[in-house]
Amino acid sequence: MMSIAFSAERLWDSLATMARIGAREDGGVNRLALGTADAEARRLLRDWALAAGCSMEVDRLGSMYLTYPGAEPGRAPVAVGSHLDSVPTGGKYDGPYGVLLGLEVVRALHAAGRRTTAPICVVNWSNEEGSRFTPAMSASEAAMGFREEASVLGAPDNFDASVTFGQALAASGWAGSAEPAAARRFAAYFEAHIEQGPILEREGIPVGIVTHGHGVVHVDVVVTGENGHVGAPMAGRRDALAAASELVLALERIAIGSGGLATATRLTLQPDARGNIPSLVRFAASLRHGEQAALDGMCAAFDGFIAELTARRGVSVAIEPRGGYPSVRFAAPLLDAMRRAAGAAGLAHRDMATPIGHDALHLGRVVPSAMLFIPCHGGLSHNPAESITPAWSAAGLATMGPAVIETAGGLA
Amino acid sequence: MMSIAFSAERLWDSLATMARIGAREDGGVNRLALGTADAEARRLLRDWALAAGCSMEVDRLGSMYLTYPGAEPGRAPVAVGSHLDSVPTGGKYDGPYGVLLGLEVVRALHAAGRRTTAPICVVNWSNEEGSRFTPAMSASEAAMGFREEASVLGAPDNFDASVTFGQALAASGWAGSAEPAAARRFAAYFEAHIEQGPILEREGIPVGIVTHGHGVVHVDVVVTGENGHVGAPMAGRRDALAAASELVLALERIAIGSGGLATATRLTLQPDARGNIPSLVRFAASLRHGEQAALDGMCAAFDGFIAELTARRGVSVAIEPRGGYPSVRFAAPLLDAMRRAAGAAGLAHRDMATPIGHDALHLGRVVPSAMLFIPCHGGLSHNPAESITPAWSAAGLATMGPAVIETAGGLA
Repeated sequence: MMSIAFSAERLWDSLATMARIGAREDGGVNRLALGTADAEARRLLRDWALAAGCSMEVDRLGSMYLTYPGAEPGRAPVAVGSHLDSVPTGGKYDGPYGVLLGLEVVRALHAAGRRTTAPICVVNWSNEEGSRFTPAMSASEAAMGFREEASVLGAPDNFDASVTFGQALAASGWAGSAEPAAARRFAAYFEAHIEQGPILEREGIPVGIVTHGHGVVHVDVVVTGENGHVGAPMAGRRDALAAASELVLALERIAIGSGGLATATRLTLQPDARGNIPSLVRFAASLRHGEQAALDGMCAAFDGFIAELTARRGVSVAIEPRGGYPSVRFAAPLLDAMRRAAGAAGLAHRDMATPIGHDALHLGRVVPSAMLFIPCHGGLSHNPAESITPAWSAAGLATMGPAVIETAGGLA
Repeated sequence: MMSIAFSAERLWDSLATMARIGAREDGGVNRLALGTADAEARRLLRDWALAAGCSMEVDRLGSMYLTYPGAEPGRAPVAVGSHLDSVPTGGKYDGPYGVLLGLEVVRALHAAGRRTTAPICVVNWSNEEGSRFTPAMSASEAAMGFREEASVLGAPDNFDASVTFGQALAASGWAGSAEPAAARRFAAYFEAHIEQGPILEREGIPVGIVTHGHGVVHVDVVVTGENGHVGAPMAGRRDALAAASELVLALERIAIGSGGLATATRLTLQPDARGNIPSLVRFAASLRHGEQAALDGMCAAFDGFIAELTARRGVSVAIEPRGGYPSVRFAAPLLDAMRRAAGAAGLAHRDMATPIGHDALHLGRVVPSAMLFIPCHGGLSHNPAESITPAWSAAGLATMGPAVIETAGGLA
């Protein structure tokens, strides 16, 4: 029925060409959001997309929308994308794979001189990684209405606090005028990504159909005890580090008990002296679960433990919210379309969840959305050694490409 | 029998005058070891002691020995002292009280034109606090033969690693030529100090007879796990922070169970990112006990817990020694002399231990030694607000002064 020939070779070549922008000597990529390499990557994507018959809009947060027209221009577009920015020690595929897979879909249509009924919009979200501007995925979160645009634009550069997201965006030349909220009108959103985990490679399965994303709660935990000399009696101490240690272990216990994930990171303490009982400890914590009710239960269990701990140890504990998003179920029709395409291509596939954040987690709260994973070697990502095979790349294209075409109403 | 009139007023005035050197605007003192304020404090002490009939020697580590001659010059001197250096946010009494009490003993003798049988040596130990050069009490430790002189001289400035102890000592003008080991020939060593704890003030007792010092083991604990994304499954994680948290709590449990003290401080971790499971955690720990066998038992219990933990969590734990000293029993004849003097002066007193390090802990390993505590308000020290009353200061003088005279063979 459909005769569009996607080119896995063209996608592979584009991934390699894109990886030269911000290339690191160790083979990885350093393309921090809104830096010079990110701006160059955006120009390359724009040029490729315009050459493939797309028009471009850029929103006020810098997210790029490259729209290949549909036969019925009034129809809401089907979007497919991801991000071009990277962590400082990034790899070649985390992000670009999803963007360039979308580009390949429109290139294939353009090469065939065909259109789908609805437009297809290739999206490059600003600041997915969050390395330079906290939090991660702030542009898609704001586009979907879950974060104030001003808070995205005002976020300080984590490497140079004198610069804001808005200033860096203007300096990069990529500040646009389109309304971010327009993305809420997408008919559907597809995002392909490397798994960033070991499951697909270990099982020899080239395609993961991502049925849902874990809800995540990010917090900072601040424990206040009392300073004292390390020669002070044990009785009566209000040691903030000992209390924080109990909290770290409680998080681990709660996660295991509920089938979720929880991790404590970024712990700092004051006073930072060998002779002083720590009186102030701050650490970051994230709690994750595939079921929203279970995630809520994890948070409640942590709160309950804190109440018991503060009474017992005479410390105080403050929880400062640091973002997150609820568990999201991806849209069954889009998942089914991908399963059919994988089946038609003879590709083994399995359902799985994403415990890791992606723009699709925010999109999926508003727009019918779906994600696809391909394997990566050793589960390695956020690492210059991140790698995939041409066959895995092709499997993702053969699965998502037809599903995008179908969701856009098929060839007109 | 003895008619020497110690002047509590002169001691109090000298404490106030000394506190003007390195004075902080908040009322405290900043006299880091071998800095300009420490050098000025040393010059003042020298001038006072020379005016009181003392001769001066300075050893190769900068410790000052101000000797008031005895009637029998061949007799080994009775030493009395402490330190003039401070922590950066120090108070007026931690250190100077013990040095200036010793000075008052020789001033009183000099004013009366009298000598004891044995010489009396007022000592100012270099680098007691250890804030600038690690470890604390390195000069007395080396003098007693428990640390290499070269390791003291080579210690880097904790605030400017380009400077060593030896270089700072030379720059201060206080590098001497005397043999540090000569201090091992003292007939006795007395050290008076503020308690740095709440017991004496709470009990309304002005004199603490310090019968023994806690042994201390300082270590750095290095936990190595495995980096990973915080989206990774809980099973199979080798989270260095979770493992370190268990170690922090094990130290606390072991201390409480054995009647000792243990504290974890200075925790740092890598990678320091919200998205990464910590793979390397380092923290400092100290274990203390008044009984050496019990301290050895605490260390053995910690080692045992580490063995169990590393097997269970798949992490490795390295223990790096960072100094310490054994539990020390002070000399009964010296303690009895102080008890008699306190009784004669009508001063309430009690026996107690010092869980905190003092030069007397090193001296006491070689030389018959004793310590005396006076109260301090709220147990506060290493703090600009550190304070004592003139009556407490006088009580210490009335207790230790006669004991020093008696131990030096009495008035000749």
